[in-house]
Amino acid sequence: MKTIAMSAKSPVLVDLKFSPATVAKALEAAFADRGSINLADPSSKGADLSHVDYALLWKPDADLFKRAPNLKVIFSGGAGVDSMMSIAGLPDIPMVRFVDRSLTTRMSEWVVMQCLMHLRDVQGHLRSQRQHAWAQQQGPEAADVTVGVMGLGVLGCDAAAKLKVMGFNVIGWSRNRKQIDGMQTFDAGELDAFLAQTDILVGLLPLTPETTGIYNASLFSRLRRDGALSKPVFINAGRGKSQVQADIVSAIRTGVLGGASLDVFDVEPLAKGDPLWDLENVIITPHDSAVSEEKALMRHVEEQITRFERGEPLQHLVDRSRGY
Amino acid sequence: MKTIAMSAKSPVLVDLKFSPATVAKALEAAFADRGSINLADPSSKGADLSHVDYALLWKPDADLFKRAPNLKVIFSGGAGVDSMMSIAGLPDIPMVRFVDRSLTTRMSEWVVMQCLMHLRDVQGHLRSQRQHAWAQQQGPEAADVTVGVMGLGVLGCDAAAKLKVMGFNVIGWSRNRKQIDGMQTFDAGELDAFLAQTDILVGLLPLTPETTGIYNASLFSRLRRDGALSKPVFINAGRGKSQVQADIVSAIRTGVLGGASLDVFDVEPLAKGDPLWDLENVIITPHDSAVSEEKALMRHVEEQITRFERGEPLQHLVDRSRGY
Repeated sequence: MKTIAMSAKSPVLVDLKFSPATVAKALEAAFADRGSINLADPSSKGADLSHVDYALLWKPDADLFKRAPNLKVIFSGGAGVDSMMSIAGLPDIPMVRFVDRSLTTRMSEWVVMQCLMHLRDVQGHLRSQRQHAWAQQQGPEAADVTVGVMGLGVLGCDAAAKLKVMGFNVIGWSRNRKQIDGMQTFDAGELDAFLAQTDILVGLLPLTPETTGIYNASLFSRLRRDGALSKPVFINAGRGKSQVQADIVSAIRTGVLGGASLDVFDVEPLAKGDPLWDLENVIITPHDSAVSEEKALMRHVEEQITRFERGEPLQHLVDRSRGY
Repeated sequence: MKTIAMSAKSPVLVDLKFSPATVAKALEAAFADRGSINLADPSSKGADLSHVDYALLWKPDADLFKRAPNLKVIFSGGAGVDSMMSIAGLPDIPMVRFVDRSLTTRMSEWVVMQCLMHLRDVQGHLRSQRQHAWAQQQGPEAADVTVGVMGLGVLGCDAAAKLKVMGFNVIGWSRNRKQIDGMQTFDAGELDAFLAQTDILVGLLPLTPETTGIYNASLFSRLRRDGALSKPVFINAGRGKSQVQADIVSAIRTGVLGGASLDVFDVEPLAKGDPLWDLENVIITPHDSAVSEEKALMRHVEEQITRFERGEPLQHLVDRSRGY
């Protein structure tokens, strides 16, 4: 069993359904003072987990919480915790979301790039290039286009700030209104007013019962239709189950939406035969807009354990009542 | 003759080889106090231009300066003035470059988008999408990649600042060193050191005798080869004649460059049969990264004439000795 227990400190239980090689490599340099038990390691199959205080998890084994009944803190391997919330037997202990500078900046890279690609009609330009056609375009500039960001957590706020720097007009929506300098914000009751001003909708919502299926035909039909882009665009980098995929397909086909960029899907991987792959002006990326970087994840868990053992409050705690 | 001379003020002579309809439309609302003479208007063919003080020009007629011998100021219709500098009979009077917030922000949209598209391997993702293949990538983040901006005028500085906000490490090069907060800069004598640190080279240089053909095989071979992107990338939105296109083609084919984004070309439009169109990971746009917006151009000329007639110094003056 590859437990490197150098002291009386409890090793960190790791069950991350990521690339096993990458996790193993990141663990080599992590938790030097307490060691770890990596369930992906075959020699850990029957390990006694009853003494373990901390677990770092992403899609853990179904029997994990039975095998480790004395956990004090659960660390999520990702920014979203919806998959964790639905696990049977999830103990009522603090759960920490993965928040990381790198994850945040990578998400903003993807979001800003997708907004610019729709603004500048990259798909149309690439089509002309394939035809060797010199076809100049003079579309709107960013200031003529309003990006509406749904979800104003760490990711939404960072993306919004960077979209503003690039010149876009940016507005924001969250369940409870957030005050953000230099940005008009809307709350749950003002969704219609928010949508009516939005040319490019950016979804960065957590998945909760309220946000399941929120991006649907009705919502798409309420987006601005007389904006500088001829038709509204939908961009989702939050959670796939927040979108009704059949509604996206028909909104693109009927011209309710002029384009979309999707990194997340109801079922992943997206099926080979799904109509989304081939739709006009729809950009598909395979849930890699902001991949958890394993070394950063380990650093984050180490930091939070240090805080916890010093008696300081944990950061990025999940609120079970909100679901994120 | 469509001269709207409402006062003793000299009308503005306009010879812009842009879209005639767009120029005519922009002129309807411009220069209300003095009128204009638009040479694209057939009725202006034989107009007497001897009394004209100001000319707004882009690729003007060869005999223009003979017909208008008493000009006080020339306004360029574009940010680059290289085509103007080579006109026979160009009088030795102040020449004002077109600098405009909109032109600047549009250029930065294009530059930042192209850098992000190479960082995030958009071409690879689109290829996977066409094959309905779910192929996750975990490339470097912006902070791991150094963008080297050649040319630190208004456009270069704005693009550099926005690339920094997106997380890139940004360095800059100009003939004479510029001091820019938070950015390492290099001058003419330090080109090798600049190139050796550069993963993505962004060209925003004016065209002068010194910058003609500057982006060539020798320069490409001096870019960083052990950076986070496996091979360096060349992006040019300055002037086409600054690049040796045959050298770009062979640098891509031999792997000296891993990709390129080109908005400008030696001869425009780029010929149908040019090998650049079909090269792996080369993105071609038809010199529309930042199209001069005619209304903004008229506003800019109006502002500068007002300054000039108040006795204030003209802004954005071309330095003939530097050639830009």
